Amino acid sequence: MSTAFSIVRRVQFSDTDLAGIVHFSNFFKMMEEVEHAYFRSMGLSVSMQHDDIHVGWPRVSAACEFSGPVKFEDEIELCLRVARVGDKSFSYEVDFMVHGKRAALGKVTSVCCAIDGGALQSISIPAAIREKLTKDLTAPSPPRSGRAQDE
Amino acid sequence: MSTAFSIVRRVQFSDTDLAGIVHFSNFFKMMEEVEHAYFRSMGLSVSMQHDDIHVGWPRVSAACEFSGPVKFEDEIELCLRVARVGDKSFSYEVDFMVHGKRAALGKVTSVCCAIDGGALQSISIPAAIREKLTKDLTAPSPPRSGRAQDE
Amino acid sequence: MSTAFSIVRRVQFSDTDLAGIVHFSNFFKMMEEVEHAYFRSMGLSVSMQHDDIHVGWPRVSAACEFSGPVKFEDEIELCLRVARVGDKSFSYEVDFMVHGKRAALGKVTSVCCAIDGGALQSISIPAAIREKLTKDLTAPSPPRSGRAQDE
Amino acid sequence: MSTAFSIVRRVQFSDTDLAGIVHFSNFFKMMEEVEHAYFRSMGLSVSMQHDDIHVGWPRVSAACEFSGPVKFEDEIELCLRVARVGDKSFSYEVDFMVHGKRAALGKVTSVCCAIDGGALQSISIPAAIREKLTKDLTAPSPPRSGRAQDE
Repeated sequence: MSTAFSIVRRVQFSDTDLAGIVHFSNFFKMMEEVEHAYFRSMGLSVSMQHDDIHVGWPRVSAACEFSGPVKFEDEIELCLRVARVGDKSFSYEVDFMVHGKRAALGKVTSVCCAIDGGALQSISIPAAIREKLTKDLTAPSPPRSGRAQDE
Repeated sequence: MSTAFSIVRRVQFSDTDLAGIVHFSNFFKMMEEVEHAYFRSMGLSVSMQHDDIHVGWPRVSAACEFSGPVKFEDEIELCLRVARVGDKSFSYEVDFMVHGKRAALGKVTSVCCAIDGGALQSISIPAAIREKLTKDLTAPSPPRSGRAQDE
Repeated sequence: MSTAFSIVRRVQFSDTDLAGIVHFSNFFKMMEEVEHAYFRSMGLSVSMQHDDIHVGWPRVSAACEFSGPVKFEDEIELCLRVARVGDKSFSYEVDFMVHGKRAALGKVTSVCCAIDGGALQSISIPAAIREKLTKDLTAPSPPRSGRAQDE
Repeated sequence: MSTAFSIVRRVQFSDTDLAGIVHFSNFFKMMEEVEHAYFRSMGLSVSMQHDDIHVGWPRVSAACEFSGPVKFEDEIELCLRVARVGDKSFSYEVDFMVHGKRAALGKVTSVCCAIDGGALQSISIPAAIREKLTKDLTAPSPPRSGRAQDE
């Protein structure tokens, strides 16, 4: 698996806790930031209408391993890899690169859902979305990169 | 493994996202809330002086599986189990019980560290702390419970 | 103006920042916590159906003055006062009491809105809600208090 | 007062709440983001050593007026103006520009402090810092702008 997409993101003051490092819950927010930027880079959104269905991606599981502290004003390169595209689910991994070393490794699996009011119903990933996700899975190409704003 | 400690915690408006459910990153904050309440219930703190050492518990890994949505104003019972007490590390699991069903299952492993300024050095868990954590591991007793404020 | 309602809320690790104190943005979340608990104490919710209308309360303004640091594991008493009930708007103040001293003073004004899909339309506060809010404004009675969980 | 500095920042999923708009507490985090980017643009940091003193800027007050909803994936231009440079305090305002209209107006006052361990002591703003802040106050020049990452 090679990197499909990456953004650079600076650590904000509000990301830190009294230990002086990024609070572990914020790594999960950052995984989502690069995931959503990746979707935008393909002309998609994680919250979009598709064939008259409102499609969303609630999480089935999320995990992160931490190998080093990340501090205020550090620049983190968030490198996303597509790990698996199932019938209804999508899995990706994120390397958190700081000063050339991996500070953390995250994994998220989401399930494609039709959202109607407050109700969620899992559905097969629509073909047009699947095609885009799968391309980065099966034919690793040189990674694209985006700045956090202009994905 | 039986529940060692539990608290009840109401979902706040700021815990939710535009999908109308608790944002997945906030499950990790809630795991930490019950962990810290558990430490307080034993007369400990996760950020404390112990024999002239400032002891803290940075995370090595954190994971959560989500089995159902949790909504604004839901009451969640957070049930903590001690999963493992290693020489330097401590692992626990949390059941997120909502309306009598488990909405999520979290797992966290932390490592005991001496904190000196910004530097972290892993250390063996001090005996007095180990003894308390181990008691809930090896001799499951009827769970104690606390309210989020008065642990 | 006397206190209409109060809750006690412990400072969580994730509320703090690298300066070792509660991040200033979290005071606004805490104002909202006591506001919503106050609504629940009157049998209301800030997000509720009322006469077939979905009523919500987006904010018009929010402000806070900080007079002292608040630290991890501090217990804060959040004391809410109803400051003004207008035709469409509701204003309240919150004292943040820590160790018997006021650490901060917050003020929020919200406007009553009918929410239909993503559209917001300001409306006169429904009479049944107005009556409850106004009672605490015009006839200060001994404050009620709740624990954060059992409002 | 003219804009001294601006960044563009995209609204993240985790910034939103169940009303489908940015949670009001997150406007305060965004004010801080542009403030800190502004400091970096001058070669400063809000958490830095200066003449052997650790200098920080705890908040005295923060306020925000909201004039319109801000939604997921909106691009916000955060435009900072230096409002006042006192002996010990620094005040700034932030316009939140979305789709060419001001969605919110924020104001923050911070006080310059020497930080020693957990203790805070207000101090006169060091001359080298004052000079940079004052320049944007007294001689409004064409605004500089930065991307959120490369301030």
